[in-house]
Amino acid sequence: MTDTIAFIGLGAMGLPMASNLVRKGFRVIGFDLDRAKLDALVAAGAKPAGSLADAVREAGIVITMLPAPPHVRSVMLGPDGVLAHLRAGSLVIDMSTIDPATTDDVADACRREGQTFVDAPVGRLVSHAERGESLFMVGASDEGHARALPLLQAMGTTILRCGPEGSGTRTKIVNNYLAIVGAQLTAEALLLGTKLGLNVATMRDVAGGTTATNGQLMINFPSKVLKGDTAPGFTIDLAHKDLMLALAAASQQRLGLPVGQAAASALGAARGGDYAGRDFSALLDYACEIAGVAPPRLSPQAS
Amino acid sequence: MTDTIAFIGLGAMGLPMASNLVRKGFRVIGFDLDRAKLDALVAAGAKPAGSLADAVREAGIVITMLPAPPHVRSVMLGPDGVLAHLRAGSLVIDMSTIDPATTDDVADACRREGQTFVDAPVGRLVSHAERGESLFMVGASDEGHARALPLLQAMGTTILRCGPEGSGTRTKIVNNYLAIVGAQLTAEALLLGTKLGLNVATMRDVAGGTTATNGQLMINFPSKVLKGDTAPGFTIDLAHKDLMLALAAASQQRLGLPVGQAAASALGAARGGDYAGRDFSALLDYACEIAGVAPPRLSPQAS
Amino acid sequence: MTDTIAFIGLGAMGLPMASNLVRKGFRVIGFDLDRAKLDALVAAGAKPAGSLADAVREAGIVITMLPAPPHVRSVMLGPDGVLAHLRAGSLVIDMSTIDPATTDDVADACRREGQTFVDAPVGRLVSHAERGESLFMVGASDEGHARALPLLQAMGTTILRCGPEGSGTRTKIVNNYLAIVGAQLTAEALLLGTKLGLNVATMRDVAGGTTATNGQLMINFPSKVLKGDTAPGFTIDLAHKDLMLALAAASQQRLGLPVGQAAASALGAARGGDYAGRDFSALLDYACEIAGVAPPRLSPQAS
Amino acid sequence: MTDTIAFIGLGAMGLPMASNLVRKGFRVIGFDLDRAKLDALVAAGAKPAGSLADAVREAGIVITMLPAPPHVRSVMLGPDGVLAHLRAGSLVIDMSTIDPATTDDVADACRREGQTFVDAPVGRLVSHAERGESLFMVGASDEGHARALPLLQAMGTTILRCGPEGSGTRTKIVNNYLAIVGAQLTAEALLLGTKLGLNVATMRDVAGGTTATNGQLMINFPSKVLKGDTAPGFTIDLAHKDLMLALAAASQQRLGLPVGQAAASALGAARGGDYAGRDFSALLDYACEIAGVAPPRLSPQAS
Repeated sequence: MTDTIAFIGLGAMGLPMASNLVRKGFRVIGFDLDRAKLDALVAAGAKPAGSLADAVREAGIVITMLPAPPHVRSVMLGPDGVLAHLRAGSLVIDMSTIDPATTDDVADACRREGQTFVDAPVGRLVSHAERGESLFMVGASDEGHARALPLLQAMGTTILRCGPEGSGTRTKIVNNYLAIVGAQLTAEALLLGTKLGLNVATMRDVAGGTTATNGQLMINFPSKVLKGDTAPGFTIDLAHKDLMLALAAASQQRLGLPVGQAAASALGAARGGDYAGRDFSALLDYACEIAGVAPPRLSPQAS
Repeated sequence: MTDTIAFIGLGAMGLPMASNLVRKGFRVIGFDLDRAKLDALVAAGAKPAGSLADAVREAGIVITMLPAPPHVRSVMLGPDGVLAHLRAGSLVIDMSTIDPATTDDVADACRREGQTFVDAPVGRLVSHAERGESLFMVGASDEGHARALPLLQAMGTTILRCGPEGSGTRTKIVNNYLAIVGAQLTAEALLLGTKLGLNVATMRDVAGGTTATNGQLMINFPSKVLKGDTAPGFTIDLAHKDLMLALAAASQQRLGLPVGQAAASALGAARGGDYAGRDFSALLDYACEIAGVAPPRLSPQAS
Repeated sequence: MTDTIAFIGLGAMGLPMASNLVRKGFRVIGFDLDRAKLDALVAAGAKPAGSLADAVREAGIVITMLPAPPHVRSVMLGPDGVLAHLRAGSLVIDMSTIDPATTDDVADACRREGQTFVDAPVGRLVSHAERGESLFMVGASDEGHARALPLLQAMGTTILRCGPEGSGTRTKIVNNYLAIVGAQLTAEALLLGTKLGLNVATMRDVAGGTTATNGQLMINFPSKVLKGDTAPGFTIDLAHKDLMLALAAASQQRLGLPVGQAAASALGAARGGDYAGRDFSALLDYACEIAGVAPPRLSPQAS
Repeated sequence: MTDTIAFIGLGAMGLPMASNLVRKGFRVIGFDLDRAKLDALVAAGAKPAGSLADAVREAGIVITMLPAPPHVRSVMLGPDGVLAHLRAGSLVIDMSTIDPATTDDVADACRREGQTFVDAPVGRLVSHAERGESLFMVGASDEGHARALPLLQAMGTTILRCGPEGSGTRTKIVNNYLAIVGAQLTAEALLLGTKLGLNVATMRDVAGGTTATNGQLMINFPSKVLKGDTAPGFTIDLAHKDLMLALAAASQQRLGLPVGQAAASALGAARGGDYAGRDFSALLDYACEIAGVAPPRLSPQAS
């Protein structure tokens, strides 16, 4: 029989995830400053705690799902927080989306207190969480991963181990970067297309049939630059030419496209050196060169 | 029996496409200023032309695949160009990736000369063209589309009609915008992740399991803003917060992320009004509002 | 006879400023964690303190000049910091360049403790500080300003009162924004000109003779938009056209100009509405409109 | 007695400049497609021409002041244009703001036809032009410069020779880049300050007293990087820190600052290498390094 789980933070994501734990038979004691949310979890079969300390004292596992770094810092490290009341040898899983420095500080504090720490921020949407179909990006030691796995499997369908403690947080940040900037990029493309008189269903169908929307990280990059192959396919010079066509059309339509303009500046610089004739996935190598970072490659077995 | 096809422009994309026409039994007469390329097509079974005018005079269909707007303008409209030598009632298909203004000028000139014009720029890569698996974005009248279809089907597997003449070019520009800015975005995300110590295979797997890489235009936008539903999922405020986490990590790692910074400016502005609490796909509505454009919606049957 | 001044933080700016106070006859007790810096001030005639608390206990005035918000927070509000040891009714002047939230927190804490707080960050360079020719941006009550003035005049030649407590910090941030982004803009312009074969002395002379380098805030804006006059001079449409000329030249020269590209996006959007035909200083009104901010105007007497 | 001057293009700038030539005693024959503008010049004492060809045939000097590259190309090189009708050995001065490629083409054509070409685009505003106080950026051979000088002096007070033919156009583009992006930068700074509660007169006064508004190209850069001295004054790291303070304040105020965000990306990248500790004017050296351009320096006598 597993330990009681203290689930701290019952917001839009936390509540359905905690409810799934209850539903799958785990003993859960919940806490949230918002009493209504706590009541909702109790209705699902969990036990309520009157305070953070009360929740933690009963548990051998603590899961936190909190809005921002200061909340995590205070709940974990505060004078009446998790580490002040948790018995040694417990498991602490933080699912909040926060910055690496805070995660690293909490991981260090757990280590000093003899606790096992796992960072496991959540991918996908609230609706996935409700159906127990979340994705978790897990930063953990082998032992931490083994202990956390049954709980994560009760809340999600895809558990991706990203590396040691802190890797989950880092992966989440990079993944969100793709999703959010991708949303702005999509907004700009649809704005431009709409102003040019195109139908949004057509734009979606075309993008879905090319690498425009789903192919850079999943198809183009793995088949080119991530294998170390930057012989062109489609050169950075041609990509720059085509981007200029889009920006000229936007200019003629009196549109500002901030992300596209920024890309023009990046591609413009990349053309300055000997990248002009390489495959446009080599934008990665150019960005890495500028930053003094060894460009990442997929190992043959991974690709 | 169909007319002879004059294929003008036998570069990296043009040559394999023309070769596919020959292979599927069409009568093709080729022309390119580069004699070696013409020889390659002749080896595949086409007839060579000594000049642009010679090629056009024999043909009832002209296909052009040229590098940039000035080439299209000169080949089509020049004193010894296509329209000067083509018999009335022919079909002209331009597959070049060019600006809408040039396409519109050529379409107008064709109309005046009694020719049927179709713009059908090509999606996907050279390797697809070689296998006859290209995607075409077609701008055409009903009649133009009907006449062009058998030829396009000989060269590609996906023929998407985008609207009247000029729509193919416009769609290509928008689609390339997504692909190229998407490549820069992918480069920045992988740079950041690599600098943070993450494995590129993990980043790819995570992105492939969430909406980060493939979901904005194919999943998120259609399920939210394109249905007119901007109740949050994930608010612009939260997206801004997460983007700031990534940019702070980049700053700490001494990286410049041009496209991400530009997105921060766009999201920062969007938060200023009453968009802060809407779903982050409503970045589209904000961009449209700023531009005075009615935001596009998918009709229920299209989604 | 004025009170003893505790001067905390003797870095590149702090040391020459404190030395000026000594030189002008003020009694100064210095403190810095770096003993060498403290020795330098002692050599100039100041008294050394063994600890922050020692310095503060002797003084009726505290001046802090520290690197970043956490240092200010800890020196001011820490358990052994300024407010813990300063006798009520004293004057606290913070000259650090920090964020408004930290300044506001310190100002509030001073108010609660019966201290008078002034924020007075420093403009100009180290060489000015050495000659006692600094500029101070002062946020202060009438009483605070009156008490701080003689000290500021001992260290600088230009004392600009910006408003109540917190205004100095805010002004400093805005002013730095102009200086730093202006440096990047200057770098981009000189890069472009150099690549185009121009002589840097010529570029400087031309800019110095037009409004290009010094005129937007000092000449153009006050004579146009800040008076509420946006009849063109030089329209946003023309400015956009000329900016596009520069970016096209940069593109041809294979340069990336990040700040200029971002401006293109902003001007591109401004042209979308009815700003296209207004004076290009009306970029201010457009930015304010987008942000829902009433556009600032110079009152007739101020201009 | 000098030759008759054909003045082509009597818009907002052209008309007052041509009028100044008349007023100073030059014989001027004017032409503009807009008859009302021509009448205005005639009222000032010039002779009207019925066509471009008529104006040119009578003149030994041609001055053009036209809106954009296509106008210049057509007026100069068109079948009934300037070069078709001008007698050999004449002087052609183009004052339009256009791209270098067009200027170079016109200069080449003039050379082939035995004409002397000078490009002399105009700085400053319409009000300066009316008072004969324009600034001219002159690209000319020694002979061209000598011949153009009396005319330029009749229209302006500052005649800056920038180099051989084509240098005037290039200088104008760079100078406009500074002015226009500077206007957007100023707009952003005032927006931020206004939202932070500051008074615009104060912001102007502070900027006027520091290097924020007028000092990068005129003071800081010449005293540091343009002398080859990048020992800090104020490091790129500190500049980045201060820029981040401004952007954080903007983010908190829910503002988007596109130019500032782009600068953050540039400074962020510059910090990645060994530029972090150099003077912030070394942003120029970083930009040049990335672009593979030798960084410009002021020769000792020029600074």
